[in-house]
Amino acid sequence: MNGPVDRSTGPFGTGPRGEPGKLGCAVVLRPVRTIVSTPMPHAPQVTTNERLVALDCLGCGRSHPVGDLTAGCPDCLVRGTPANLRCRYDGDPFGQLPLRGARTLGEGGTPLFPLPAELAPDGVEVWVKNEAANPTGSHKDRFSWGAVGRAAAAGCAGVVAASSGNAAVSLAAYAALYGLECDLAVTTAVPAPIVDAVRATGARLHVFEDAEQRWDFVRDRAADPGRLAVTNYVRPAVGSSPFGVDAMRPLGWEVVDGLGRVPEHVLLPTARGDLAFGAHLGLREAARRHDRPGPRVHLVEPFPRLSAVRAGASVHDSFPGTATGAPSIGGGSTTVQAQRVLAESGGDPVVADGAAAAAERLARHGILLEGASALVLPALHRLHGSGRIAPGETAVLVATAHPFKGL
Amino acid sequence: MNGPVDRSTGPFGTGPRGEPGKLGCAVVLRPVRTIVSTPMPHAPQVTTNERLVALDCLGCGRSHPVGDLTAGCPDCLVRGTPANLRCRYDGDPFGQLPLRGARTLGEGGTPLFPLPAELAPDGVEVWVKNEAANPTGSHKDRFSWGAVGRAAAAGCAGVVAASSGNAAVSLAAYAALYGLECDLAVTTAVPAPIVDAVRATGARLHVFEDAEQRWDFVRDRAADPGRLAVTNYVRPAVGSSPFGVDAMRPLGWEVVDGLGRVPEHVLLPTARGDLAFGAHLGLREAARRHDRPGPRVHLVEPFPRLSAVRAGASVHDSFPGTATGAPSIGGGSTTVQAQRVLAESGGDPVVADGAAAAAERLARHGILLEGASALVLPALHRLHGSGRIAPGETAVLVATAHPFKGL
Repeated sequence: MNGPVDRSTGPFGTGPRGEPGKLGCAVVLRPVRTIVSTPMPHAPQVTTNERLVALDCLGCGRSHPVGDLTAGCPDCLVRGTPANLRCRYDGDPFGQLPLRGARTLGEGGTPLFPLPAELAPDGVEVWVKNEAANPTGSHKDRFSWGAVGRAAAAGCAGVVAASSGNAAVSLAAYAALYGLECDLAVTTAVPAPIVDAVRATGARLHVFEDAEQRWDFVRDRAADPGRLAVTNYVRPAVGSSPFGVDAMRPLGWEVVDGLGRVPEHVLLPTARGDLAFGAHLGLREAARRHDRPGPRVHLVEPFPRLSAVRAGASVHDSFPGTATGAPSIGGGSTTVQAQRVLAESGGDPVVADGAAAAAERLARHGILLEGASALVLPALHRLHGSGRIAPGETAVLVATAHPFKGL
Repeated sequence: MNGPVDRSTGPFGTGPRGEPGKLGCAVVLRPVRTIVSTPMPHAPQVTTNERLVALDCLGCGRSHPVGDLTAGCPDCLVRGTPANLRCRYDGDPFGQLPLRGARTLGEGGTPLFPLPAELAPDGVEVWVKNEAANPTGSHKDRFSWGAVGRAAAAGCAGVVAASSGNAAVSLAAYAALYGLECDLAVTTAVPAPIVDAVRATGARLHVFEDAEQRWDFVRDRAADPGRLAVTNYVRPAVGSSPFGVDAMRPLGWEVVDGLGRVPEHVLLPTARGDLAFGAHLGLREAARRHDRPGPRVHLVEPFPRLSAVRAGASVHDSFPGTATGAPSIGGGSTTVQAQRVLAESGGDPVVADGAAAAAERLARHGILLEGASALVLPALHRLHGSGRIAPGETAVLVATAHPFKGL
């Protein structure tokens, strides 16, 4: 059997739409993917990338050997100031991912297309990075590739997670791809399409009245050493699998590669900052190759959490609030990793509401997104209104999921 | 404002995942997209590609000037043997599309990933081309880019169509993108997620008891010269907008470009052959650049239509049958264009049922598809069992839509 040809050394211009300027084709960008292995019958076992040399704490900075520290940095946990870990590679992290030989459902490589002018602030160039064009319809597929792949590489029998919906479907799919068991804790608010999809994969759904009860379930189930917790279960929260977060970095690479330059601003919806941190790292790594700082990464939240911290609250406080129409970014906690994104990138927290109205406004221009994703639109206008985004600048909106899962 | 950099002359190897062989990344391919215009504020008006010089009849071969012959070839229509038209370009059609300056939602450029070995016949290399990773979750977005874009280029006020679901959502989105009116005829079987999405765009849904009543609605509504019918409304059926069909050709380019070679077989679910014909043309165009014939394109149907024609029926007959679990490929008609795909490519019609079981089997390996899409899996095994697909060959399954729209 001939494996697919390695495209990485060929001319860029042989892509399907041929020469620029001669085509009547659309403005749309998808990044190049190189092929690094053959299909399944000959696929290698998944292993952890040997250039991944340590997990560094985002709170105290201490380095830990690569392993499954599912509650973040043990030292910070003991001190009552939990913080997540990040992957450290030997050498330049650009182009490195935590796994080798991992299975795939075609995650990533999502399109980047211009926001219709009618929806953009005057003079601001706005692009949409559409993460809904992932195998299970959300950015979580990037995370699952890393988190579930790591579980397989570590020889685990299964994964355990809490989710409001998108992560549940995504983790269930990647667990099924590897033949791993999958236990998912959701609340009674989980929409029917999520339930159906998760059950179709063979994963087990555990339904709780309260969101926080899910975390206790994850903690207890993951006490079995054969089962790896891949989402947060500690209080205060740390965030989710560092391998999953790290696997979100290509989103940032793709944005810079797609535009061919570094945008001034990136906006994304945020709960505990897994996507935000991964995207921020990737953006910064790609920007470095242009000898530029990374973009300001603005984090959109449905009620004040990050905003409350900026106003003086502790990152480890609880922040009660309701994420009306945006369940994917609900929850009363924020994290050290989310704070790091704002501090390192110079971005702002932005409280936005009116998810349903924002989703409808986008739909009236053909862009179908779930409520949490749609909140980037009012957030964009708020940042423009306050002068944080100026005419002549470029902003990229990260659309995280499509609306067909009922979220 | 700086437009995005043209990537078509840069080195291929600067993609986000860096060098091959050194990465721990997934086997996944997405084709290159070149950038040909700047975002909306500076976007040109959509026009019909001036290199599109004629519409040729697939039945009688007669050429017609470029225009909106929504019932196919007028001569064949009069003779009672309706046949669709195809776009003819001046020179090599590879890289040509029917529109210039068209708006986009990020359609196309979908991933190609290996089918898990457990699901593939022994010794056959099988890849999945996942069209669910399109803006509204199906291959129809490629069609809508062409069909709705043509309506805009022609100065129409609106589009009219009949659909079982995926096309409805897709056409509604692209009409909204252009600010065109959109009238969609569906049946009472239309799932709620489709209704919700279509209404969110501002399109009008017209619900009929019977599938064929929809065609009369499309015919009557499109009698208004400001409204362009973009799906079939004639009996016997011809298929849909030649501009939309033509815009599906990049799927074929992407498959060959992604593998770096021409696969022996491509399988896709079929009703009236719009996707089939577009994909077939694109595959053949791309294969020609490898000095190879195109792959055999096998058309999967839920009950005998193409199979009945092969057994001696007329292509213009009616074929009663039920598409259990696969409404996207229902309907009692086939078309000249679908026959042409089989005749020109050497492919077979394949009757497959058990859509729900096939979808579940795929889901158990993490691949979430609607019923009609899932039927390519039993069809693959049937072709292998009959010796039509042999060990050592490569087959590509076209997965047309995700399951979250309730189809």
